[in-house]
Amino acid sequence: MSNASITLYHYPLCPFSRMVRLLTAEAGVKVRLVEERAWNRRPEFLQLNPAGEVPVMVLEDGTALSGSGPISEFLAETGAASALMPDTPVERAEMRRIVAWFERKFDREVTRNLVTEKIDRRFMPKELGGGAPDAAAVRAGLANIRAHLKYVGYLAHRRNWLSGERLSLADLAAAAQLSCIDYLGHVPWGESAPAHAWYARIKSRPSFRPLLADQVAGMPPPPAYADLDF
Amino acid sequence: MSNASITLYHYPLCPFSRMVRLLTAEAGVKVRLVEERAWNRRPEFLQLNPAGEVPVMVLEDGTALSGSGPISEFLAETGAASALMPDTPVERAEMRRIVAWFERKFDREVTRNLVTEKIDRRFMPKELGGGAPDAAAVRAGLANIRAHLKYVGYLAHRRNWLSGERLSLADLAAAAQLSCIDYLGHVPWGESAPAHAWYARIKSRPSFRPLLADQVAGMPPPPAYADLDF
Repeated sequence: MSNASITLYHYPLCPFSRMVRLLTAEAGVKVRLVEERAWNRRPEFLQLNPAGEVPVMVLEDGTALSGSGPISEFLAETGAASALMPDTPVERAEMRRIVAWFERKFDREVTRNLVTEKIDRRFMPKELGGGAPDAAAVRAGLANIRAHLKYVGYLAHRRNWLSGERLSLADLAAAAQLSCIDYLGHVPWGESAPAHAWYARIKSRPSFRPLLADQVAGMPPPPAYADLDF
Repeated sequence: MSNASITLYHYPLCPFSRMVRLLTAEAGVKVRLVEERAWNRRPEFLQLNPAGEVPVMVLEDGTALSGSGPISEFLAETGAASALMPDTPVERAEMRRIVAWFERKFDREVTRNLVTEKIDRRFMPKELGGGAPDAAAVRAGLANIRAHLKYVGYLAHRRNWLSGERLSLADLAAAAQLSCIDYLGHVPWGESAPAHAWYARIKSRPSFRPLLADQVAGMPPPPAYADLDF
């Protein structure tokens, strides 16, 4: 397909949007990025995705694909991202297990507690849930990241990439979530050498560069965020 | 593959486990059911799925597949459940969007507020989160189910099944979530005739029968739960 006018509605610190930005860059699919603050529930955006969530990818013919999972599977099925899918059904099940680990478990236990509390709520109107971070949620997120980092290290120590020999959707989903926490400076990289080495490799890829340039107004990342020798 | 000794670790009122029970029945894959109370974090179970969550399907050769998404895609790829996948990539993206709607959004906004609070916490030891339901969560769940039922009706009114002409994983994921809420008698079926008609059709399928026989100790479902003329 020609990629001239594919649009990706995203939010810079949304890990699911970041996953699709990494994916399209790795797959060589050019997209026009449009930032969407989904909590404003803009009617035109709700028509694209009634769930009111980013990411949404709109193809040239106007077809809207919603969610990092459906978008990933679509790009793998139609060829662009097929190299990011392992070869056998059992290996693909293992990859999807790890994707789900990060997009469900890590998101619930870490990202929502830290990114939603410390960044998103800063920009939301008060009547939509905006306000100061919930200190108990932040504490839970800071505790949970350590166990998750240990699991990343466990996988990275046994395998070349998180789900096997080749870079796959699992690495992109994990890196997308971790990169949001890293923007806040809350990943204790010193606690796991294999996790640190894996992240250094994926952070050095050209697909990662645009994420490292993201800036949230009034909340710059720590210097290590964009440093390849972190 | 021969299905003689495939094992499914499940929990009766877990909507993700129910999704896989429906799926295997529709696909003609025989499974041996083993009830797992995942919150007990049994070491042998954590070896199968380090996330400590049901469902987990163990194949004859000992390969463990974790999570309703990975299991569904595996059964579709290996042939048994291929009829539950639409034919084109765009239709499959639409189906996966609806699956994600129910397994992420509905689960977070309705199921966790009602089933986790009213059933799961009843059986959990106090130190693991057991106890009386949180009244605010239950109120939120009861409010949210109405908007979700309206959306089911919207889809069912426009299409033969939720994601298109054919029964698909989307119908199974939606029915699995709704069936757990229906066990509690909290689905206001009278508010949407098309949603009611769609559920009546799927509830009448042979694959649904084992779910209608489920009984939680000390908490029987209302008579309408197992009644095909509800």
